[in-house]
Amino acid sequence: MISKIPEPPYYAVIFTSVRTAEENGYYEMAARMQELAMLQDGFLGMETARSDIGITVSYWKDLECLKKWRENLEHSYAQQKGKEYWYRAYKVRIAKVERHYEFQR
Amino acid sequence: MISKIPEPPYYAVIFTSVRTAEENGYYEMAARMQELAMLQDGFLGMETARSDIGITVSYWKDLECLKKWRENLEHSYAQQKGKEYWYRAYKVRIAKVERHYEFQR
Repeated sequence: MISKIPEPPYYAVIFTSVRTAEENGYYEMAARMQELAMLQDGFLGMETARSDIGITVSYWKDLECLKKWRENLEHSYAQQKGKEYWYRAYKVRIAKVERHYEFQR
Repeated sequence: MISKIPEPPYYAVIFTSVRTAEENGYYEMAARMQELAMLQDGFLGMETARSDIGITVSYWKDLECLKKWRENLEHSYAQQKGKEYWYRAYKVRIAKVERHYEFQR
């Protein structure tokens, strides 16, 4: 679903990844991380899609909230497992959303 | 492919969309727009994935380059067709990338 979000400025974390062939609990962990992110202070929404690469964009109130999420222990553990098993490569981009607009049929 | 891009700051355009069932030249136009974007001044890269929703993130040198791309005539025509036929809803977010990091196996 496309996230409904308050007016800019807010922050986007663009996570682009290439997976390995390894399952090993990946889907459970992805679901758990989504659930956990939603409980964080300042979490605004998340959008995700996967074809050859996966793109997950999460939206956050400010950098302080983002910092807390990065330091969350369960999240840190998931990131470690991600490097060990699930991802061949990934890139994380922290971006400040300055403007947004939408179209709705 | 995950885009290789110079150091921040640079701009990201996050385009999140829900498609209609309509084909009507969609794939040809999407390929043409990708080709055309790559020819634009200041274009840095593009990443795209689709599941229930589609996410395309394109990266640009600065807002001036982005403005020119938005005003490109062929691109404007594609946007119009998108509203008429291909998209049930979409959201565009213009964001300034402040930081990025990556993992490579």
